[in-house]
Amino acid sequence: MSMNSFGHLFRVTTWGESHGPALGATVDGCPPNVPLDAGMLQHWLDMRKPGQNKYTTQRQEADEVEILSGVFEGKTTGTPIQLMIRNTDQRSKDYSDIMEKFRPGHADITYWQKYGIRDYRGGGRSSARETAARVAAGGVAREAIKALVPNLQITGCMVQMGPHKVNRDNWDWEQIARNPFWTPDAQAASDWADYLDSLRKSGNSVGAVVEVVARNAPAGLGAPVYGKIDTDIAAAMMSINAVKGVEIGAGFGAAELTGEDNADEIYMGNNGPTFSSNHAGGILGGISTGQDIVCRFAVKPTSSILKTRKTITKSGEQAEIITKGRHDPCVGIRAVPVGEAMMACVILDHLLLHRGLIGENQGAIG
Amino acid sequence: MSMNSFGHLFRVTTWGESHGPALGATVDGCPPNVPLDAGMLQHWLDMRKPGQNKYTTQRQEADEVEILSGVFEGKTTGTPIQLMIRNTDQRSKDYSDIMEKFRPGHADITYWQKYGIRDYRGGGRSSARETAARVAAGGVAREAIKALVPNLQITGCMVQMGPHKVNRDNWDWEQIARNPFWTPDAQAASDWADYLDSLRKSGNSVGAVVEVVARNAPAGLGAPVYGKIDTDIAAAMMSINAVKGVEIGAGFGAAELTGEDNADEIYMGNNGPTFSSNHAGGILGGISTGQDIVCRFAVKPTSSILKTRKTITKSGEQAEIITKGRHDPCVGIRAVPVGEAMMACVILDHLLLHRGLIGENQGAIG
Amino acid sequence: MSMNSFGHLFRVTTWGESHGPALGATVDGCPPNVPLDAGMLQHWLDMRKPGQNKYTTQRQEADEVEILSGVFEGKTTGTPIQLMIRNTDQRSKDYSDIMEKFRPGHADITYWQKYGIRDYRGGGRSSARETAARVAAGGVAREAIKALVPNLQITGCMVQMGPHKVNRDNWDWEQIARNPFWTPDAQAASDWADYLDSLRKSGNSVGAVVEVVARNAPAGLGAPVYGKIDTDIAAAMMSINAVKGVEIGAGFGAAELTGEDNADEIYMGNNGPTFSSNHAGGILGGISTGQDIVCRFAVKPTSSILKTRKTITKSGEQAEIITKGRHDPCVGIRAVPVGEAMMACVILDHLLLHRGLIGENQGAIG
Amino acid sequence: MSMNSFGHLFRVTTWGESHGPALGATVDGCPPNVPLDAGMLQHWLDMRKPGQNKYTTQRQEADEVEILSGVFEGKTTGTPIQLMIRNTDQRSKDYSDIMEKFRPGHADITYWQKYGIRDYRGGGRSSARETAARVAAGGVAREAIKALVPNLQITGCMVQMGPHKVNRDNWDWEQIARNPFWTPDAQAASDWADYLDSLRKSGNSVGAVVEVVARNAPAGLGAPVYGKIDTDIAAAMMSINAVKGVEIGAGFGAAELTGEDNADEIYMGNNGPTFSSNHAGGILGGISTGQDIVCRFAVKPTSSILKTRKTITKSGEQAEIITKGRHDPCVGIRAVPVGEAMMACVILDHLLLHRGLIGENQGAIG
Repeated sequence: MSMNSFGHLFRVTTWGESHGPALGATVDGCPPNVPLDAGMLQHWLDMRKPGQNKYTTQRQEADEVEILSGVFEGKTTGTPIQLMIRNTDQRSKDYSDIMEKFRPGHADITYWQKYGIRDYRGGGRSSARETAARVAAGGVAREAIKALVPNLQITGCMVQMGPHKVNRDNWDWEQIARNPFWTPDAQAASDWADYLDSLRKSGNSVGAVVEVVARNAPAGLGAPVYGKIDTDIAAAMMSINAVKGVEIGAGFGAAELTGEDNADEIYMGNNGPTFSSNHAGGILGGISTGQDIVCRFAVKPTSSILKTRKTITKSGEQAEIITKGRHDPCVGIRAVPVGEAMMACVILDHLLLHRGLIGENQGAIG
Repeated sequence: MSMNSFGHLFRVTTWGESHGPALGATVDGCPPNVPLDAGMLQHWLDMRKPGQNKYTTQRQEADEVEILSGVFEGKTTGTPIQLMIRNTDQRSKDYSDIMEKFRPGHADITYWQKYGIRDYRGGGRSSARETAARVAAGGVAREAIKALVPNLQITGCMVQMGPHKVNRDNWDWEQIARNPFWTPDAQAASDWADYLDSLRKSGNSVGAVVEVVARNAPAGLGAPVYGKIDTDIAAAMMSINAVKGVEIGAGFGAAELTGEDNADEIYMGNNGPTFSSNHAGGILGGISTGQDIVCRFAVKPTSSILKTRKTITKSGEQAEIITKGRHDPCVGIRAVPVGEAMMACVILDHLLLHRGLIGENQGAIG
Repeated sequence: MSMNSFGHLFRVTTWGESHGPALGATVDGCPPNVPLDAGMLQHWLDMRKPGQNKYTTQRQEADEVEILSGVFEGKTTGTPIQLMIRNTDQRSKDYSDIMEKFRPGHADITYWQKYGIRDYRGGGRSSARETAARVAAGGVAREAIKALVPNLQITGCMVQMGPHKVNRDNWDWEQIARNPFWTPDAQAASDWADYLDSLRKSGNSVGAVVEVVARNAPAGLGAPVYGKIDTDIAAAMMSINAVKGVEIGAGFGAAELTGEDNADEIYMGNNGPTFSSNHAGGILGGISTGQDIVCRFAVKPTSSILKTRKTITKSGEQAEIITKGRHDPCVGIRAVPVGEAMMACVILDHLLLHRGLIGENQGAIG
Repeated sequence: MSMNSFGHLFRVTTWGESHGPALGATVDGCPPNVPLDAGMLQHWLDMRKPGQNKYTTQRQEADEVEILSGVFEGKTTGTPIQLMIRNTDQRSKDYSDIMEKFRPGHADITYWQKYGIRDYRGGGRSSARETAARVAAGGVAREAIKALVPNLQITGCMVQMGPHKVNRDNWDWEQIARNPFWTPDAQAASDWADYLDSLRKSGNSVGAVVEVVARNAPAGLGAPVYGKIDTDIAAAMMSINAVKGVEIGAGFGAAELTGEDNADEIYMGNNGPTFSSNHAGGILGGISTGQDIVCRFAVKPTSSILKTRKTITKSGEQAEIITKGRHDPCVGIRAVPVGEAMMACVILDHLLLHRGLIGENQGAIG
């Protein structure tokens, strides 16, 4: 019921504001005896870390994670793992403008209306800094998955920036880590660099689409009706800041297909069932098929821009605002490791749920 | 934690299979003293009921709902409301084919693998009949909402069938109830009729996009991070059978916008803040703004088609299958009242959560 | 979050009022492939059934349970199991007295104040009839336990009626089913018969203490802090109507012991650790030890008595009331199968949680 | 579902081990605009702090709490409040004895069997140090309650040490803070001092009974069946280390009463209903009556004693153990503020649930 928790058996609660002393994640339900240290988590945090190139915010944060509990002699103990990240670059600046005015596209106005109080510095709780805690928690999930399903791989990438989509014929998993956009299409990386630089210089921003794929997930994860694994993936991704849409497999494209084209035909392979295609995105009836689990989510353009926008003040007066500061021209870039982290959390949770409710898959084929 | 429950304070658990004696919903958390009788729920069930025209399955189900508990002298008592719908048209037929073979695009293969047992008659628990229970529960939510926010309105409609989108210039709320497709565009209704009839006759099916709008929802519903109202809407819609994507406001279209174009400017109106546009779909930072809450979801084409498809049997042998029977050529049509019902459940739940956690909105403007 | 649900992975939601058309339980999280039919549940319902002898209410209820979902060809499918019990003996009587006056010791006054509406007939939702649904759900839990830990046995019995305790030297498990009080002490059964008959004739009632023991439960069930198995047992038993106290092992008696006397010494047996005594009631640090899990709960005397008591009316006037009707002189008797059912639900839930979170016990001894 | 969380709308997750770097509580669901600073919480922590007199452990812990999030300019913001307490007195000592041997009465053996790993230093997660986090969280709950129901008071006290009960005729609320045992009976305080000193010197320990009373709680808190406020109180108290029993009102004493004696008669007072007595402990049918909410819980004697006890080692060999170190001779003393904290959490949670589900009490009397 907690509004700041996610997951069922593997349950993550994040806490903290952009400009408070620290933020973090309380991670409960990690199985015991999983090898874990801060360095393993730092790897993923460094992917999300700001200030790494000119395409992300210039805020300088070490984003160093400390493990305060739940690990003993290098292994998880089955008790809650507290992950804390100190905020170090709370640059002193004049916040009087955003204290009084609501930035369009931001949560300023809704937080104020609901709570009547908000830590306006850097967006407070609604800052994208909160996603650092998710990435740390996702790192824990990854290690636990590794212990359960060693060859399961979760990879995120950008497949669209503004109106520019990748060419799927160019898809190369190896490319993803080689460009600042986490895209598998080297040509797109090159094109986007110019496009985004131009937007950045003009003080504007742009949206993006991120794809996250889980390869080698076993069949059988998820449950009918409200416990569908795609239900949890949809919730996980939609809960990320700035996300406005989520789709599985063919997604919105499935709306345009006929039944004949959409239904992935089934064949018997050497290691069990195989499919002629994967419109389903690896999920049928809410339960994984053993194919790649494929999801995409749409990230809106960063709302903090150097363009003058109309708004109002707390006292209801008409005003204009320009959001100065250190902002990502395409916040979708840093959403890639966040999407991966959420997928890792969902998959570990469903591995545990499946084991709890069923034990092992009950139905053999062949 | 229940895999068959949805919601936090207003919590719905559905139960039942397509060809069992009955199905229904256990509705917990409805406030007391809400006027309620079976007739109020029947209105919404009749919208979803099969067999009403040639565009939906010809299965004949009265879908009559009985209220077994939680209502006394025409009002809710605050205790669980049990809604039961008897299955009456479990036509005896030969199920040997689908008992042994997995229908492509259906949950047959994943249910079998996970559970090792499934009620294969009519899809069992994965049948779209389950959504009747959701519609009944949504009817309860609507009555409770009426008592709390009388002018709040939830309306669903079809905005795309296959590749054919509505023309938003033709949008007319009054049209929705006047055509078999629940579409606000009279021209689209006319065009789709021919299109779908042709698909139906060829034994094929097609996907669709459904839009659900909540008008006059108050500002302040939802919470940061995992308690976002759009998180719950995404989960709600993705949990509906055959749904493959969900988006809020501009949705995937937001990925193509610049920050300048996307951020809805804010003005001071007579009754509080107003916005120049609604790319946000009525939600900022997970909290409602007071604008229309707008969501869309993609429904894949019905997987049961009269086309021969390749598949395998439980014993792993290669086979072919044609799914005979009484199927919807565009299951998106009957998804419209289901989407409305889920939206009603989410909104009531968040009205109660907001009241519980906050009481009333804390921050005044102006 | 549902106020009418219990359990985590194995989750039971009961519904229904004493004089409505039916009551029942929605049982979610039962593993698949567990043999189940209504007859198996009826066995336990018959234990709790009213009207079996002069020591329980003379209301005549068949308490016949129907399984409406979740079972196919005699086995559970892993989907929700809906259990419905029709109310058949809603004797027409004049309720005007209890409609206006609050019966002391009953929930009448608090329900009225909170909800402003209540089904006053027979106590409505607060009637002990609700426990029939628990017993049915407990029957499902028992069958699922049998599939997981075949020799696990759950047995409840009465160990005290009013001030009269059993003599533990007379303890004989076989006696429990042979007397109307479910007591293991034949001498107590004989003594209590006279005692209770005299109370019954005078229109009075009396309290009791029930003990529930789970034998052969494996070590390792439960979790530290809030997930302790004794936390869930305490909640389970305290949620039963009329229960005012719960204790584990030595319970309140442990308050009188010294550390030297209380700490059960540990020895190495042929099949693992054994203990010199069981003051802990089979639970250390919230986790089962493999010893008998022992809990006791106190049941207050039936509040419906033929004695005149002072009370007030809804309009605030002073009044007197005598609760005529068909009441149990010692409602503790029929609480025995209810306590067993709750223990079964808790243990199955923790078997599933343990399997989900841990898999198998990780630490070997010897 | 988290095993380390407690509560529904007001939800506390504790984390940390006795000898790790820190421990704390993640507090979610606190309403916004509640005045809060670390000093307010420190007051309650100081009550529980070890080393204050010879009757509690001599471990020296400042137990200083830091608020890392959720508070802005001295008020809660409605976002998660992270409370951290550094462990400062992790005295270096030789743990080889308890690393290999299981201390009787402790969780050592069950943790080992379940998890196969445990932080054995000072009991790790099962240490009573965990309760510091509860007390801090309870301090937050108290401040939030103060904002909602200003005159509600929660007070705990010891009513029994070993076999020695307080004389209720001596009850004086003012005495509680004036003696090291938090007892309202000055005579008992004097007697217990000698008794406990003698036990302490002999290296033994003893159990206790703690009573927690909530005065001026409004009528209407709680819900039927599993949402009873006494269900949550029972779970809350049983989840505290070393607690073996919980009772409400007359509790186990109610088992000995007749219906005539037990049912509290109702009268009409100037400010609503009053009762002739309070056997119900302020709760009828799971819902508060407006009377004092009264609960008691039994605390077993400290298991760490200087007496030689039989046990086994991890390798299954027979052994003896003496638990040296800094231990409480009567851990019930420091359980008093912990019980108060848990009561505060339950009551705040139910205040919010009541407001969410009902709004305000619906039924007037008179």
